[in-house]
Amino acid sequence: MDIEKVNSMDFGEFVDVFGNVIERCPLIAAAVWSQRPFSDLADLEKHFFAFIDALPESGQEGVLRCHPDLAGRELQRGTLTAESQREQSGAGLTSLGTDETLRLAELNAQYRARFGFPFVLAARLSDRTAVPRELARRLHCPPAQELRTALGEVKKIGRLRLADLLGADPAKL
Amino acid sequence: MDIEKVNSMDFGEFVDVFGNVIERCPLIAAAVWSQRPFSDLADLEKHFFAFIDALPESGQEGVLRCHPDLAGRELQRGTLTAESQREQSGAGLTSLGTDETLRLAELNAQYRARFGFPFVLAARLSDRTAVPRELARRLHCPPAQELRTALGEVKKIGRLRLADLLGADPAKL
Repeated sequence: MDIEKVNSMDFGEFVDVFGNVIERCPLIAAAVWSQRPFSDLADLEKHFFAFIDALPESGQEGVLRCHPDLAGRELQRGTLTAESQREQSGAGLTSLGTDETLRLAELNAQYRARFGFPFVLAARLSDRTAVPRELARRLHCPPAQELRTALGEVKKIGRLRLADLLGADPAKL
Repeated sequence: MDIEKVNSMDFGEFVDVFGNVIERCPLIAAAVWSQRPFSDLADLEKHFFAFIDALPESGQEGVLRCHPDLAGRELQRGTLTAESQREQSGAGLTSLGTDETLRLAELNAQYRARFGFPFVLAARLSDRTAVPRELARRLHCPPAQELRTALGEVKKIGRLRLADLLGADPAKL
């Protein structure tokens, strides 16, 4: 899909295609449509990220709260979005043993209780051994720093999803 | 459900329960959770509306673009949210004849083309004869005024959905 195709979409098509670039936040794609035409993929991405950056802190926390736990209940229940399912599966999180699953569940719960949002990590850039290690590390970060870190992960996820949709190599963005 | 129950919810429960108060915008409920505790239903509602009011214009248009057409494709396909399905059904929009359906589809398309967002109306406060009349009327309003009108309808819908969830009489809010 090239950028001319993107620019030719009405808002219904645009939200259908880009609605989950930011996990479960079709509102953001729907808002970004107002900024068309886009000059290229980097420009499109810029508008997604600018929208997140301009949100009040509660809204940024809200974006994080729309994300599922890694290897959590939604993975068990099969209620993840298609994108999350693929990403968690690719990181090996769908084939954890009971011990690893329970350990992650406990760390996820501690993280949620401490920060008021779930642990968000670009699973495609990680793997089943790195996820619990990184979770245990970030659990001890100061809350303001952790909010920034988590939003950075939301952007990494969004960048990869956008590159997939446009058929681009994310390393070249 | 009373307000103490609401205030005791973790963000996962809160988004499960209130995630569709604003149609397909769980981000907004997820952000509102940051404002707890809530003193009562009116206070809870105030935070939903304040979030919408504080969005940039593109974000407000984004909220509107997350709404389905009335008597549109999603109703035909059965892909409406449970709340929308109930509301459109209650207004008699699920039992239109072919002529009425086609007339509404045409008006909806004209409206979307003119304003860049779908026609939003609190269907529970309307009915199958009033919907096309109101749509035909609003189609000729100035865009800035129509954005305000449409956001007012989003709030009416949200108010009724919140009142349902809290078991309150919306007339007393």
